Amino acid sequence: MSILETIHRSNDVKKLREEQLPVLCGELREMIIKTVSKTGGHLSSNLGTVELTVALHRVYNSEIDRIVFDVGHQSYSHKMITGRAQQFSTLRQFGGLSGFPKPYEAVDDACIAGHASNAVSVALGMARARSRLGDKYDVAAVIGDGAMSGGLAYEGLTNAASSGEPMVIILNDNNMSISENVGGTASLLQQMRARPGYISFKRWYREALSKTPKLYQFNHSIKEWIKSRVLQENMFTEMGLYYLGPVDGHDLLSLETAIRYARDMRKTVLLHVLTKKGKGCSYASREPERYHGPGSFDPVTGAMPAAKPCFSTAFGDALCELAQKEPRVTAITAAMSAGTGLDAFRERFPDRFFDVGIAEGHSVSMAAGLAKQGLIPVFAVYSSFLQRAYDMLIHDVALQGLHVVLGVDRAGLVGSDGETHHGVFDVSYLSSVPGMSIWCPASFAELREMLRYAVLEETGPVAVRYPRGGEGAYTDSCLEEETLLSEGEDLTLVCYGATVNTMLSVVDRLKDAGVCAELIKLNRIRPNRFASCLGSLKKTGRLLVAEEVCAAGCIGRQLLAATAEAGFVPQAVKLVNLGDGVVTHGSVEELLQLKGLDADSIARAALELLGKGE
Amino acid sequence: MSILETIHRSNDVKKLREEQLPVLCGELREMIIKTVSKTGGHLSSNLGTVELTVALHRVYNSEIDRIVFDVGHQSYSHKMITGRAQQFSTLRQFGGLSGFPKPYEAVDDACIAGHASNAVSVALGMARARSRLGDKYDVAAVIGDGAMSGGLAYEGLTNAASSGEPMVIILNDNNMSISENVGGTASLLQQMRARPGYISFKRWYREALSKTPKLYQFNHSIKEWIKSRVLQENMFTEMGLYYLGPVDGHDLLSLETAIRYARDMRKTVLLHVLTKKGKGCSYASREPERYHGPGSFDPVTGAMPAAKPCFSTAFGDALCELAQKEPRVTAITAAMSAGTGLDAFRERFPDRFFDVGIAEGHSVSMAAGLAKQGLIPVFAVYSSFLQRAYDMLIHDVALQGLHVVLGVDRAGLVGSDGETHHGVFDVSYLSSVPGMSIWCPASFAELREMLRYAVLEETGPVAVRYPRGGEGAYTDSCLEEETLLSEGEDLTLVCYGATVNTMLSVVDRLKDAGVCAELIKLNRIRPNRFASCLGSLKKTGRLLVAEEVCAAGCIGRQLLAATAEAGFVPQAVKLVNLGDGVVTHGSVEELLQLKGLDADSIARAALELLGKGE
Repeated sequence: MSILETIHRSNDVKKLREEQLPVLCGELREMIIKTVSKTGGHLSSNLGTVELTVALHRVYNSEIDRIVFDVGHQSYSHKMITGRAQQFSTLRQFGGLSGFPKPYEAVDDACIAGHASNAVSVALGMARARSRLGDKYDVAAVIGDGAMSGGLAYEGLTNAASSGEPMVIILNDNNMSISENVGGTASLLQQMRARPGYISFKRWYREALSKTPKLYQFNHSIKEWIKSRVLQENMFTEMGLYYLGPVDGHDLLSLETAIRYARDMRKTVLLHVLTKKGKGCSYASREPERYHGPGSFDPVTGAMPAAKPCFSTAFGDALCELAQKEPRVTAITAAMSAGTGLDAFRERFPDRFFDVGIAEGHSVSMAAGLAKQGLIPVFAVYSSFLQRAYDMLIHDVALQGLHVVLGVDRAGLVGSDGETHHGVFDVSYLSSVPGMSIWCPASFAELREMLRYAVLEETGPVAVRYPRGGEGAYTDSCLEEETLLSEGEDLTLVCYGATVNTMLSVVDRLKDAGVCAELIKLNRIRPNRFASCLGSLKKTGRLLVAEEVCAAGCIGRQLLAATAEAGFVPQAVKLVNLGDGVVTHGSVEELLQLKGLDADSIARAALELLGKGE
Repeated sequence: MSILETIHRSNDVKKLREEQLPVLCGELREMIIKTVSKTGGHLSSNLGTVELTVALHRVYNSEIDRIVFDVGHQSYSHKMITGRAQQFSTLRQFGGLSGFPKPYEAVDDACIAGHASNAVSVALGMARARSRLGDKYDVAAVIGDGAMSGGLAYEGLTNAASSGEPMVIILNDNNMSISENVGGTASLLQQMRARPGYISFKRWYREALSKTPKLYQFNHSIKEWIKSRVLQENMFTEMGLYYLGPVDGHDLLSLETAIRYARDMRKTVLLHVLTKKGKGCSYASREPERYHGPGSFDPVTGAMPAAKPCFSTAFGDALCELAQKEPRVTAITAAMSAGTGLDAFRERFPDRFFDVGIAEGHSVSMAAGLAKQGLIPVFAVYSSFLQRAYDMLIHDVALQGLHVVLGVDRAGLVGSDGETHHGVFDVSYLSSVPGMSIWCPASFAELREMLRYAVLEETGPVAVRYPRGGEGAYTDSCLEEETLLSEGEDLTLVCYGATVNTMLSVVDRLKDAGVCAELIKLNRIRPNRFASCLGSLKKTGRLLVAEEVCAAGCIGRQLLAATAEAGFVPQAVKLVNLGDGVVTHGSVEELLQLKGLDADSIARAALELLGKGE
């Protein structure tokens, strides 16, 4: 029987003998590699935090205490320790475990995670609630150095520092955010890493002083004096946090001591822990970024199947072409160079490439400055992360009509990352940004054409949104507002982006059922006068709009409002979309089926609309 | 002839003799007090930055160089110096000067401002564009210590620090954001203020060294050595910025020298300037917060007309009542305690009140933590500033259905603050947040009832949105989804919030024209099944929806989509709203008229809809 099999809950870890702990860590690592090599997921970050997680559970009881993981892509060991080891093979599968903390899975998951830099804020709220309600539990936040580049982390830290709330903020410093770490804070951390071990000193010191427990006051002033000698001031102490560290994040006993010590200080403590991404796995520790979020791979060699062409690389290639022709083109990423397909651009045009760290708001405001002074900034960003920059899009870009181009990647359902990562709100929130154009390519060729148009021909804010993954049956390229892809009299089908592939199948299925559907693909969803749609609807009288976005502000509703304003209404209407936008994890195919957005479901809905349903 | 009358552009300030400068500063102050006492506006911040602005124009040429003002509520002297002194009496008036920088007013206004903390990001973009394009101009950002609590400022600073871009970031430290300054960074600045004058030393040092100009390398290492002796490390130096300061922000010559020195370093410099809000005006310097953004007042005594009851104070009073009854109620503000009516709450319930600084994102994420652990957080925030927290609302609050209450103040047009401050996007963006309830009180009584319901009866995220200013003719209180306020057969009028007052007049005007209109007031706009609206429309066949929000995602479009999905369409439709949402400054009445949202215009539109227009 493995040690992991004896661990069913947080407190079980506390019962282990010291010599069992490295064995447990080995088992956790093995399970992580074995599972992720099959399911895909976050490898490097989870391998780097095994000891840290075990140490956390040695000190805290996650059923009562609140451990808030930032991003949450380092929570695999935590999940296995808290009763989910048996289900771990279902990771990121439809109906299985989520790859991120989810309170609905276990009380041990303190809150939702997925986006970066929020953990200190959330944990501070929890600590304040604890104190206000007179509860006794402890609160800890675990945040990576990459997430420290996000302004939300700073807002949380500076407020926490002045709160006086007892809580421990663990800075998991692996010297690497998702891409290479950038920014002033990153270089500060670099300096701090070089300092001598402080915690081991503390341990000696504490043990020595624990023999004279009455001398607290004296003790305290010595402590402060020693601290001032040993530690230089740093950004965190200047904010008013109690800084401890750095501690070796793979030395379990030091870690445990340090966390317990930090907890028992009853102060707002920042504990600086040094970890190595990919620890314990040769290929992942050698290339931690490559194994940040891999798909399946060979668990022994790390070999991955050849990457398939996808919209991200098509975007990156197209942008390189444009940059070659037009020297004003510049690219911005918020720590997602590889994910957004910008690695080639970075290499070819290093002086026109800006990786600003996990800072989407800054990306957009900086882009406004670039655009105002004559460059053409292109910010490549995942749809769900761009939500962070909503205000900057309106205030800094749109109010002055600046020509900032957004490459909105991962638009629509993203699959196994789930709720926090689906790009299903952008159609709604980008539609409200004054003057915003929104293009929806459905093929690589179309992406290239639309990006070219967006960069070289448009003048105001413009977004090109495209899905995760590769192209389907549709490989054409259209630049007009709407394209009629199939003529028919019985009903009008409307779609945009990659959904066109599904809809082409729907047309075929309907044909088999004796229904002749007209299919209109929207190429630019904003602005759009819906002229072809309206014309078609006057002919068919029946409308079905299918889209992978939340219902609020969706194109279906926009189109219906336009038809009504034009004094016309279809006699039958079906809007197929994602409702309130909260969709679980699983393969995109499974999720489309779940939400009635697969070809079969849509065809069925169309037949029902025609009164031909079973 | 005053000195100000001889100043027509940035460079004119450079021609003044040293002894003329204090006279100019006096004239600027006089003009600020005289004008703002009539027009209302930002008093304390503009009085505090007169010398700083004059010094900036002594060093930079704002026609070519880029001076980026953060928030921009300190730009009055800048406007007067750059050719707009003659028009200054039109400040904040419809058709007159904006109270914030506006590139459409003058080339000297480098970019839009209004929201806090973006200046460093925008300026960095400009500096990068300058370097990339080989241009020669200089770039400076002017940012207050209050705005330093915003995460966007930190993102900008940390990225600027690693950029190597020559630019000067002027930290205008007045020890006071809009409310009292809070947070760890604020207390750090407090310590830094206490340091000995560094710049005067620098001046001596520079003059001495300027006589041996060839010794740059040697010079530089001495400089670094002296710096390391004189200055402690601080957060800014640790990030990698070159820190200079603090400098007395009312000592014009020191300021000018310091700014020039900072510019000539060709580094990314943070120049720390100490100013006093309200400087040179006894009442404003005594109570800078009170005179932050006053309406009209007596320029001699500072006496203000008695404050009229408004939705903000009604909100604050109602929240105090709820807090009295329910100990779990807590209040959050992002440096807007007075503006959002929370001052009374702060005094009565200090341990349940959190002012987190200008940090809307953190406010919402922290609220998520409070709610998750059993408190009932109420975040009072202006509609347009809440845009900063869009992602946190979705990710931290809505995905787990947490009960966070938003008091969305300044919803709709706000008047003389203009484009950047109108609360005209929230109906759209809040509608896309999963599970969000949105209540729209139109009277103080209704606000009290709806807030009570939102706080005590609802369970998920909920917003109560209310306008700037006081209530009108409507003083009832309704909690059902829709209320029929007037019965009629000819057409259906739909509205929500304070627009009901206009619509009651419209009903009267239409009656005079022989038209019998049905008026439906929406009380909760989300979720809403529009049952009464649909019922009414089936009777009247004609719809007019009036709302003070942008067209995208507006309730009119939502309602039309709902009617079409219900298989029904009105025979005539008119949606009256703010189009793309960009609306200039002026009185709310003037703006409503401009946008066709006053009673006359709406009545006229209704008659046209009925084919009865002239």
